Amino acid sequence: MVSQGATKEYAHIMTFTTLALAADGPTTGLSLHEIERREVGPGDVRIEISHSGICHSDIHTINGDWGPKPYPVVPGHEIIGRVTEVGASVTAHKVGDRVGVGVIVGSCGTCGECSRGLQQYCGNGLVWTFGSEDPHMPGHTTHGGYSREIVTEEAFVYRVPENLDPAGAAPLLCAGITVFSPLKTWGASAGKKVGVVGIGGLGHLAVKFSHALGAQTVGFTTSPEKEAMILGLGADEVVLSSDAAAMKASEGTFDLIIDTVPFSHDLNPYLNQLTVDGTLVVVGALVPITEPLIGGALISKRRRIAGSVIGGVPETQEMLDFAGEHGITADIEFIRADYVNQAYERVIAGDVNFRFVIDATTIGAPAPELISAQEAADRVAAGALIVDVRPERFLTEAGVNTLATWVDRKNMDAYFTPGGEHYLAEALADTDREVVVMCGSIKGSAPMAQWLLENGRANVSHVDGGFDAWREAGLPSSLVE
Amino acid sequence: MVSQGATKEYAHIMTFTTLALAADGPTTGLSLHEIERREVGPGDVRIEISHSGICHSDIHTINGDWGPKPYPVVPGHEIIGRVTEVGASVTAHKVGDRVGVGVIVGSCGTCGECSRGLQQYCGNGLVWTFGSEDPHMPGHTTHGGYSREIVTEEAFVYRVPENLDPAGAAPLLCAGITVFSPLKTWGASAGKKVGVVGIGGLGHLAVKFSHALGAQTVGFTTSPEKEAMILGLGADEVVLSSDAAAMKASEGTFDLIIDTVPFSHDLNPYLNQLTVDGTLVVVGALVPITEPLIGGALISKRRRIAGSVIGGVPETQEMLDFAGEHGITADIEFIRADYVNQAYERVIAGDVNFRFVIDATTIGAPAPELISAQEAADRVAAGALIVDVRPERFLTEAGVNTLATWVDRKNMDAYFTPGGEHYLAEALADTDREVVVMCGSIKGSAPMAQWLLENGRANVSHVDGGFDAWREAGLPSSLVE
Repeated sequence: MVSQGATKEYAHIMTFTTLALAADGPTTGLSLHEIERREVGPGDVRIEISHSGICHSDIHTINGDWGPKPYPVVPGHEIIGRVTEVGASVTAHKVGDRVGVGVIVGSCGTCGECSRGLQQYCGNGLVWTFGSEDPHMPGHTTHGGYSREIVTEEAFVYRVPENLDPAGAAPLLCAGITVFSPLKTWGASAGKKVGVVGIGGLGHLAVKFSHALGAQTVGFTTSPEKEAMILGLGADEVVLSSDAAAMKASEGTFDLIIDTVPFSHDLNPYLNQLTVDGTLVVVGALVPITEPLIGGALISKRRRIAGSVIGGVPETQEMLDFAGEHGITADIEFIRADYVNQAYERVIAGDVNFRFVIDATTIGAPAPELISAQEAADRVAAGALIVDVRPERFLTEAGVNTLATWVDRKNMDAYFTPGGEHYLAEALADTDREVVVMCGSIKGSAPMAQWLLENGRANVSHVDGGFDAWREAGLPSSLVE
Repeated sequence: MVSQGATKEYAHIMTFTTLALAADGPTTGLSLHEIERREVGPGDVRIEISHSGICHSDIHTINGDWGPKPYPVVPGHEIIGRVTEVGASVTAHKVGDRVGVGVIVGSCGTCGECSRGLQQYCGNGLVWTFGSEDPHMPGHTTHGGYSREIVTEEAFVYRVPENLDPAGAAPLLCAGITVFSPLKTWGASAGKKVGVVGIGGLGHLAVKFSHALGAQTVGFTTSPEKEAMILGLGADEVVLSSDAAAMKASEGTFDLIIDTVPFSHDLNPYLNQLTVDGTLVVVGALVPITEPLIGGALISKRRRIAGSVIGGVPETQEMLDFAGEHGITADIEFIRADYVNQAYERVIAGDVNFRFVIDATTIGAPAPELISAQEAADRVAAGALIVDVRPERFLTEAGVNTLATWVDRKNMDAYFTPGGEHYLAEALADTDREVVVMCGSIKGSAPMAQWLLENGRANVSHVDGGFDAWREAGLPSSLVE
């Protein structure tokens, strides 16, 4: 199985093929491809990917926004899966472990930055998870996580706590570490006041991490209707950035602000929110920031603006462990592989809550049976179990420990957050009743049904049609409230 | 002498009058005024001012660039003098001490910033040395250092090392601390690489302090002809910022850059010079920086931009002590009070090397005798001593210890840096020969002659007319090379 000569010098490499979603050009969209991966070398880990997050940078890379890339491009750097094989010298991971792979899969290992565990700033030999020249396969490009399998150097494989919903954990590998790293670098902790600008994929995780780190956490938003949602994420307070009086009232009070806005915007209003020695960290805007920066706003209180990109290897593991301790995952929409092109359109339109995660097991897999709400109601009446797997932000937030409460309250047989297959499998182990899976829409939770199908519950089907169709079909009203 | 009730509440205050240079409006220029100062209260120090630096902010304040001010405005916050009286509770200073006063003369004393010794960031009761409402004299405005005397709270009076040329030391109180503070805050030291952008009043001191702190120090300039001068200040290297190849070669290598440029300019070229975690500190540009900031330049190496203003009380004293230990003073043009309006025009035109310092003893004093080059030659031929007090940058840099070498080399009786009256007085103590003082021009060194006049050397005259006139008159050629 292990290839001969898994070094950077070898001329002949052993490879295997696996399925992936790849773009053949900037405008082709993603389609199913068979790709080559190297066989496991002595220091490698082979991973069966279960979840792969969609990051806006995937789209930028495919579009060539950051320079031309050799197609096909297989994006994806928010990867969760289980180890299926390890090389002879691997000690940190073993077969069966739940693991993750993030944005980088290689660095020089010897420069000052690598020595300090800041591999993300390595200037000598950074290997991006996708779209980089592959040092293990000369002439090839690295392929990312929209794939059934990946082979990665041990050093760039992370342990993922088993208590975390793996679908919600996937975005931690990029979005999570991107906000966790600056929160740690600039000391978010009890007694500090932290603001988050832009409550999206990155920002909602920034609120969760900041809150868990003990900081007084404030979300800035231009949308009053988002206040309850932001408070629900763990913010202590919400400031309407469009309200001049509110902004004036909180001026000069923040120790740290994480600015996740990915386009050019005016930094001065947020600079003025900082207290003496406070820092505004830009993690989203790679673009030129065209609004003039007021020097006086910096100088008058020794304020700082900084940038930050992902995190190094040790800090990424620290972040995952911290997320495990505090039950932090991303709020996601869990999608089948065949929804990826629609998901891209929605990401571009800003229509995502808060991150799409692809069920990697659906790449190249058959679709589950789709039944009408009426058919579902008939099957339930005939004794089928009903399981609600609709994406539900606050349940994800509450975590698996409160599932029993939710099941009671919602008057259903079981309720699981998308991606909670592990728990669902346990719950269904003792029954041979048919299982009808409730989905908010096919995009959101169909992969759960798919998973059940693929894991021996062939009697599983899932229901589409939305709340109105369900209500009309006479399904339990508590489910459609 | 001590006024009754020197508290913030008193209704009746005892005052004395002193002479000052004041502006009656934005366009009036400065003229001689008689102003009131409070009599010394229990916590006050009365200072006879000998030197007062000209800072560009003096001009901005008079112009109303930073908001309207009640005229007359007496500028000046780079003040050196000697203590003539202390209040009953004063312990840090005694009569005769050489002391300084800087940019601030009061703060609340109780806020978080004051508690940390960062009085410059006090948001509750900062009192600027001039142009602030005077808490000691309700209804009055504070008056600055272009004056014969000042009365200041003990806490805002600094010890000035006696070994420093007091004229060169005056600019340390604003320009010096403005660059010293960020150098210390961001860790300029051995093993660090520090850049300085803008080699003017602030920048030339930044080079000196950075060098003395042990950092590898690099001056950025657009002018190749300034290279030798910048190296002479103590820079290890000069980078031509207009040379793209040179900028590319040093990209990503700086730990800290102090940017003293006082107008809007493009920060990106300097940002790109920073290594991972490096900081660009803006101390000059209060204005909107209109060149778009490239977010990617910040993010890609966790770079930081910061601002900084002067320093707190403890750090200002630390800076003066450090300057004393390392013999650091500003390179200056020492001027008579009656040159101040011309000096302002030259500051606005950027025509100053590197700071003007007013001889405060000349405020309201008679002008010294001015003789022709021929008359000077005749007097020297008749036995007069010749003393060269022309401003000479490298001599100032070399410090007083090397004076003997210079006197030898230049084939003259004595050579003193402007402001070195103390040493000049010692040198002339044993002679009753007439003293002819050589001046490069009346603006630069006439105050030295003035000082000699006022200190009992009534036979002192000084020579104007420039090098050609001197050469024609047959004065020693070594003096005019």
